[in-house]
Amino acid sequence: MESEASTGVAEAEEHDPESNSLEQPLLKRSPTLSSNPLALVGAKVSHIESLDYEINENDLFKHDWRSRSKVQVLQYVFLKWTLAFLVGLLTGGIASLINLAIENIAGLKLMVVTELVDKGKYLTGFAYFAGVNLVLTAVGAVLCVVFAPTAAGPGIPEIKAYLNGVDTPNMFGASTLIVKIIGSIGAVSAGLDLGKEGPLVHIGTCIASLLGNGGTEEYRIKWKWLRYFNNDRDRRDLITCGSASGVCAAFRAPVGGVLFALEEVATWWRSALLWRTFFSTAVVVVVLRAFMEFCNSGRCGLFGKGGLILFDVSDVTVSYHAMDLLPVVVIGIIGGVLGGLYNYVLHKVLRLYNLINERGRIHKLLLALSVSLFTSVCLYSLPFVASCYPCDPSLPDDTCPTTGRTGNFKQFNCPPGYYNDLASLLHSTSDDAVRNIFSTSTPTEFHPLSLLIFFVLYCVLGLITFGIAVPSGLFLPIILMGSAYGRLLGLAMSHYTNIDQGLYAVLGAASLMAGSMRMTVSLCVIFLELTNNLLLLPITMIVLLISKTVGDIFNPSIYEIILHLKGLPFLEAHAEPWMRNLSVRELAAAKPSVVTLRGVEKVARVVEVLQNTTHNGFPVVDEGVVPPVGLPMGATELHGLVLRSHMIAVLRKKWFLQEKRRTEEWEVREWFTSVDLAERGKKIEQVEVTEEEMEMYVDLHPFTNTTPHTVVESMSVAKAVVLFRQVGLRHLLIVPKYQAAGMSPVTGILTRQDLRAHNILAAFPHLAKSKRREKGKMNQ
Amino acid sequence: MESEASTGVAEAEEHDPESNSLEQPLLKRSPTLSSNPLALVGAKVSHIESLDYEINENDLFKHDWRSRSKVQVLQYVFLKWTLAFLVGLLTGGIASLINLAIENIAGLKLMVVTELVDKGKYLTGFAYFAGVNLVLTAVGAVLCVVFAPTAAGPGIPEIKAYLNGVDTPNMFGASTLIVKIIGSIGAVSAGLDLGKEGPLVHIGTCIASLLGNGGTEEYRIKWKWLRYFNNDRDRRDLITCGSASGVCAAFRAPVGGVLFALEEVATWWRSALLWRTFFSTAVVVVVLRAFMEFCNSGRCGLFGKGGLILFDVSDVTVSYHAMDLLPVVVIGIIGGVLGGLYNYVLHKVLRLYNLINERGRIHKLLLALSVSLFTSVCLYSLPFVASCYPCDPSLPDDTCPTTGRTGNFKQFNCPPGYYNDLASLLHSTSDDAVRNIFSTSTPTEFHPLSLLIFFVLYCVLGLITFGIAVPSGLFLPIILMGSAYGRLLGLAMSHYTNIDQGLYAVLGAASLMAGSMRMTVSLCVIFLELTNNLLLLPITMIVLLISKTVGDIFNPSIYEIILHLKGLPFLEAHAEPWMRNLSVRELAAAKPSVVTLRGVEKVARVVEVLQNTTHNGFPVVDEGVVPPVGLPMGATELHGLVLRSHMIAVLRKKWFLQEKRRTEEWEVREWFTSVDLAERGKKIEQVEVTEEEMEMYVDLHPFTNTTPHTVVESMSVAKAVVLFRQVGLRHLLIVPKYQAAGMSPVTGILTRQDLRAHNILAAFPHLAKSKRREKGKMNQ
Repeated sequence: MESEASTGVAEAEEHDPESNSLEQPLLKRSPTLSSNPLALVGAKVSHIESLDYEINENDLFKHDWRSRSKVQVLQYVFLKWTLAFLVGLLTGGIASLINLAIENIAGLKLMVVTELVDKGKYLTGFAYFAGVNLVLTAVGAVLCVVFAPTAAGPGIPEIKAYLNGVDTPNMFGASTLIVKIIGSIGAVSAGLDLGKEGPLVHIGTCIASLLGNGGTEEYRIKWKWLRYFNNDRDRRDLITCGSASGVCAAFRAPVGGVLFALEEVATWWRSALLWRTFFSTAVVVVVLRAFMEFCNSGRCGLFGKGGLILFDVSDVTVSYHAMDLLPVVVIGIIGGVLGGLYNYVLHKVLRLYNLINERGRIHKLLLALSVSLFTSVCLYSLPFVASCYPCDPSLPDDTCPTTGRTGNFKQFNCPPGYYNDLASLLHSTSDDAVRNIFSTSTPTEFHPLSLLIFFVLYCVLGLITFGIAVPSGLFLPIILMGSAYGRLLGLAMSHYTNIDQGLYAVLGAASLMAGSMRMTVSLCVIFLELTNNLLLLPITMIVLLISKTVGDIFNPSIYEIILHLKGLPFLEAHAEPWMRNLSVRELAAAKPSVVTLRGVEKVARVVEVLQNTTHNGFPVVDEGVVPPVGLPMGATELHGLVLRSHMIAVLRKKWFLQEKRRTEEWEVREWFTSVDLAERGKKIEQVEVTEEEMEMYVDLHPFTNTTPHTVVESMSVAKAVVLFRQVGLRHLLIVPKYQAAGMSPVTGILTRQDLRAHNILAAFPHLAKSKRREKGKMNQ
Repeated sequence: MESEASTGVAEAEEHDPESNSLEQPLLKRSPTLSSNPLALVGAKVSHIESLDYEINENDLFKHDWRSRSKVQVLQYVFLKWTLAFLVGLLTGGIASLINLAIENIAGLKLMVVTELVDKGKYLTGFAYFAGVNLVLTAVGAVLCVVFAPTAAGPGIPEIKAYLNGVDTPNMFGASTLIVKIIGSIGAVSAGLDLGKEGPLVHIGTCIASLLGNGGTEEYRIKWKWLRYFNNDRDRRDLITCGSASGVCAAFRAPVGGVLFALEEVATWWRSALLWRTFFSTAVVVVVLRAFMEFCNSGRCGLFGKGGLILFDVSDVTVSYHAMDLLPVVVIGIIGGVLGGLYNYVLHKVLRLYNLINERGRIHKLLLALSVSLFTSVCLYSLPFVASCYPCDPSLPDDTCPTTGRTGNFKQFNCPPGYYNDLASLLHSTSDDAVRNIFSTSTPTEFHPLSLLIFFVLYCVLGLITFGIAVPSGLFLPIILMGSAYGRLLGLAMSHYTNIDQGLYAVLGAASLMAGSMRMTVSLCVIFLELTNNLLLLPITMIVLLISKTVGDIFNPSIYEIILHLKGLPFLEAHAEPWMRNLSVRELAAAKPSVVTLRGVEKVARVVEVLQNTTHNGFPVVDEGVVPPVGLPMGATELHGLVLRSHMIAVLRKKWFLQEKRRTEEWEVREWFTSVDLAERGKKIEQVEVTEEEMEMYVDLHPFTNTTPHTVVESMSVAKAVVLFRQVGLRHLLIVPKYQAAGMSPVTGILTRQDLRAHNILAAFPHLAKSKRREKGKMNQ
């Protein structure tokens, strides 16, 4: 009962550019309770479905469960861990290859440009720089636009939605994976202001999904073992492992990866899963380390040096006193305000970009290329604005100035003995830029004007780059922006504090992350693993707490904003306070009345119901049954819930009965296995039933889940939402609180869409009035 | 409906010392489904109750909820954060004071002993050493035995049970807190093989509970604001903060503390709580740091030097290759085997100790003192067995040998220029012992024989010390044991590997922790924060994963064993596989039939029901009501669930009606506020009702929770368990799947005790047969 899909894609794509409030998603929805199941997946409007995490306890499942041998159980456990291992192995391997490609492509590009600038050929240098960047951007954008629109963006909101129970088509397919890998290499090498971190998370989940399915939709390993994984529960667990592995591969932060998956991405969590996720990330780290060891000897071209810690600042001992708390608090507050502002403006930019992207592929492509050209112009030309500064003579000769690809004191257009601080930041890969701006014990390296230019530039680039049609992550742009203002603040405070300026940059980055993404523990651990400075931990914690608190005053986290914008029906963990004033009976009354089926039903009726509704589950009610001893005849019985996909499977196999009778358990087992029922995605339109068959009967009992979750009609919506989300349901039946002859044992059915605050408010506008007043009222 | 308490304490304390299997708790239980609500809390048999996390949506609550003003909501939010702040502040402060006291008492003791040994007065030294230890142990033991038996042991299993929904009386009271603080100082200073870590967690939760309650049971702040906290939900959250603060204070590991609370202690978790817990631990770290800064200048006696990192091993760079994986795997396997063995033997020892402790206070005391004496003899005399070794001349003069309280190369009974390696480990506080055995770049310091003696000694001490009647933690004994065999292995491997021996000790400690406690992520972070060596992280992860896996083959984690031993009705997160073969109807049939009340009930009937049952919740069913339009008259209606405590409140206030009628909403509000109903712990025996009043009526409608959680009778127990645990219920009503005239709308009720695997197996022995076969079968 996924709600009516009467509104088509055309209507869904219609939108009102004027109404820019945060309340309004990009897709316009009808004001009925159950709105249409469409959402933006990646950059494409798609039909979405709910996932089924509940164990469908029907006769077939029960038999399969009972007959499962010890060997099969061991096979299952072994496979579960093998898949977690493979997810880690492949994610680690692919992440290493991506890094290798980016370092080599971007490195080569920068070396040639540096050489040209060194020779004074400024214009040739620019042409080369902008040209290469345009080509690289075009590679990413064309792939994204033509082959896999779902590969655009970071993918994290869609993963979050998937783990919340929203199935998003083509999100985790092979084409998405390949486009994401190549597109990410192209976009990052092109010097665009975006990171490979978000895409790596998506890559990890794609790998997990493909492994769990045993291949792509077309080419699938029909391996017997894999059939145990043919359910949404196990796929969900594997994808959680994949997302943690992705974060781990991106930041080389195994514990941070697990916590990121736990705090930000996953909806359901068990300690057994914690452990398996941890295993996957451990494998990723081992792979990354092995790869680095292999490359350290120079066998990987320009990729090589560097250990497991990405932005090491462990060489400074952090000594701080009560007085230093003040700048820390200031950084936290600024981070929160800027983060809130960033979320707000990015939201507007994304709405604007959506208008452009909707006009067609060419527009998408042109937008991406314009951004690339603008980026190239800024990155190339701005260092010429900055002055040349003499090198600090106390530095070793070969560190200042440098002319190579990396290095903290780039000579660029300066005379020997001088360096250009802005070139150190702009004429390098983003990883190197972060490393340079985090550099410790170099208090005089960067000058306020350069840092200010850098900050403003990355604010602009960060906002205009994220929405273009290439794989793009949010982490690195935010780190760059935050570190710039952090270091700027450190410079301003240099007389009052004895915290190193490099650490200020780290704190600035952390504060903006918390201000925009609103995570705490996972960010804290990720920063710890990124920078390897444990003594910084207490102040990092304070900064994160303050930034998140301040940011929460203004708007929700950036991922929540994107989720809402895309119209993904994400179910929050807590109920809204006003939901206590509404009962599920009132909620169900606002939608069409429930369609029930009889246990032994005419084929014609089944076909009719499947054709005329879009519901995915139907209560099965038997009438006139013999109740337990002592009660009058003619009772009605709630037998359970039957799924659309199972009924289609029955129609396709034509398991029909001549007479109206209840079948024996062995009869159905001769025709069906639980594997047959696990098949999904078939449509009623693909089923052909003859006139003659229409008059026959079908016994739905063996396929009916006899243990559906139910609530009594007096239940408040607040409690129903918590139940729905905590147990991970797809359908929730409403049973009457009365017992009387002739009453139906089921009075309604609720799905994810019915329980979303946004949809309920559309159907019950009077609740919206009390909403604002009660906002924040003990939302447990 | 907390089950019948017909079996008294006498029967409960009876036990069978022969049946030593892990399946058997210390308290014998009756073989009915709902067994008696008794458990060992601390070292005392107590009556336990379930907690009520569900929001009781009755008329009074709904009115209170609607009328709550914005100011009150702000008050609530402000108070929530203030309390989290205070929990951190006080836990940090008390932890600092405990450390200060221990360092000074134990330090002074050791200094005198060292002096006496230096002068050759070996016997006087021993008399002094053993005497002081006995006195210190006696202080802890007498306090524990006389004033607060609940303060004995670590307290973590009881906290785990509390957060799972089991109320344990006197566990978080003021007397427990005070005894825990003083007792812990005494026991740790006495050199017993136990840690202050577990007790600190308990101290944190006591502080949280007292703050949430606004004081002790006798002296309570009657502050209006605090009334919002007069519910189990908010208390649970606060206690979670307390436990995280405790771990943080113990290991100076803020992130580790949060994760420990998340992975090991807490049952329910929300991201909002994650954030608040993180705030509490941040406050703890700031307090600890401030205190250290204050003490660094020598104002705290013997407490002083040392930074925020407890066992720093960051000075060695970890360089390892594929070959080094072998010893790492070996450590992991040994850790798992030893951990499993440790759990097994400790379980037996605890059963034996229970026999002794039950004989009375004197026996408890004598047991504690004997253990103290044995510990003193071993600690004092064993170093004389070890040989003296010459100091490595490359070491600075003042580090070898040392004669003071601390130091890595103790001279003890050796001539100048020589040191006694076993004395370095045994004649120091446990913290210093860990620091010494973790010491890096000292490959020749410890000798195999000394390490072997140390390992065996701490195996014995660790097993015999834990169960005595003093506050005792498990962490430090396990770290000491594990580090000994780790270092021993490092010594044996020294020719094949280039990992430092200190790091081997760290890995050994981690492996034994994982092998016994079976945690992964939280241990990993705690070890990272303890040792400050990020590069060690990948191998720590591998060790932890292997040890946990190996340990899980043998038995459950030590905390689970203790929980079971104490008979605390802990509800596991996952259902057992055989629970799928049982429906809630069959389960409910194995217990006495449900007692229902009418909406307007005679006082006599209410009194009778309360006196003759021990149930805590009763379904309220109205008969002959007018059903919705179109249905015959005479339906029955499930109005909801009324709590025992609320009915007692009504009886105490004597809110009786002359005639049988339903009251209006305003009537009850004139008599009761939601604060009146929040009161708990009153007994029906304390209520006096006259003969005349017995004939009157009481309207239960306004007190009835109209939104109880329900399941249909065909629901499998497996799904019911998951629902019960995930949503955090106390009562789960069973509704019929039939609709017929004259049928009751509720057919049964399930509580925590009914859903415990152990109890179900006792009532359905045939399921136990299939249990072993199916063990491990997809226990999601």
